[in-house]
Formats: sequence, C-alpha cells, structure tokens
Amino acid sequence: MTSLDPAIAERIQFTESGLVPVVVQEATSKAVLMMAWMNAESLQLTLTTGRATYWSRSRQELWVKGETSGHAQQVREVRLDCDGDTLLMQVDQTGVACHTGTMTCFDADRLL
Amino acid sequence: MTSLDPAIAERIQFTESGLVPVVVQEATSKAVLMMAWMNAESLQLTLTTGRATYWSRSRQELWVKGETSGHAQQVREVRLDCDGDTLLMQVDQTGVACHTGTMTCFDADRLL
Repeated sequence: MTSLDPAIAERIQFTESGLVPVVVQEATSKAVLMMAWMNAESLQLTLTTGRATYWSRSRQELWVKGETSGHAQQVREVRLDCDGDTLLMQVDQTGVACHTGTMTCFDADRLL
Repeated sequence: MTSLDPAIAERIQFTESGLVPVVVQEATSKAVLMMAWMNAESLQLTLTTGRATYWSRSRQELWVKGETSGHAQQVREVRLDCDGDTLLMQVDQTGVACHTGTMTCFDADRLL
C-alpha cells in the first residue's frame, strides 16, 4: 500500500468513499479524453510513476490505464481546483482513451 | 419546474443525489475552466436557454453561472460520455470562470 504525501492529502477533499474525480486532458490537442476517479493510493502512484493510475469503481481495484489495452497515459501535469475536490491532469495518450475505441469518451453522444 | 426531455434523461446515469458532473471547457482556448454539477432541471435549462446553469451542492439551489458576478457562460456544445455519467460542455466564458478571480479553477495549485 503506497501512502499519499500528507502535504498533498490534506489539500484534497475526498468523497465519503475516499475518491476524487480526475478530468483527463490530452496535453497537445487539449481534447478532454475522459473523467475517472482516484483514491489516495492511485494518486500517489500516478505522481510517483508518471503513469495514470485510477480507482475502478466498478471493479473496486487499482486500474493502471493501458495495462491490458496498451493505451497508457504518460502524465505531464496534475492540478487541484480551487475548492480541492477535482483534479485536472494533462497526459500524453498512447492510442485511444476510450474503451469503445474512440479517441475520447465524449465522441459519441452530442446533446447540443 | 422545468422537465428534462425524457429521450435525454434516459441516457444519463445520475448519482443517487440526482446529479451529473459537468466538465466545462472554454471553446476557443480549450482550457478546462471548472467542474460543476447539474440536476435534470439545470441541464434542461442549460439546453434550452444556452446559458450554463448548474446545481449548487453547497447552497442546494439552481445556480445560473454569472447571475451575480456577470461571468456568464454561453453554451456552444454539450456531450455525454460513453457510460452516460459525465457531461462535457464547450462554452464561451465572459470574464473569468473561478470565483477566486483566476481564469480557471485549476490555476492555483499544481501537484505535479
């Protein structure tokens, strides 16, 4: 179990489930690729390995992005918002971000 | 009370509290401005008025962005993600997006 740096942990408002939402943006194109969730451990792993690592709410386990698909995300920058409850991450995306095969998770359904 | 179009409502996975997170991106610069929450009513108002309208979790009320500050958001596009639980919205931002006076809510605190 990897522990999150206390100086960072104290600035983040995790949900009751111990999670924080992460907006993931492609560093070059600026496309918003997806939104995912991190717990303290996955954030620490992301910060220390430079490889985007999330918490899968459906599988209830750590999820190293691209570990099975090869579609990894190299992390360039991580920022916390003004009220400390959302992260914004700039990444270099290998292949596509969405499990459906589209570049982003927002490509298929336009409401307006 | 404004009702959300059922054809849209059935595609969205709202949380137990009846909310959906919205990633807000500036249409021209592609900067991610903020993340906020909508309930069905605020989404319907956003889609019909073209003016970004959220649900304030702290005040528990509808929040027409810029109504008091003047920092309104004109909505250009709204998309739903692949699993239907996150919205991505392209807006034209008047003034700054963050209540702290910075352009985005992610300007102040960089973790990596």
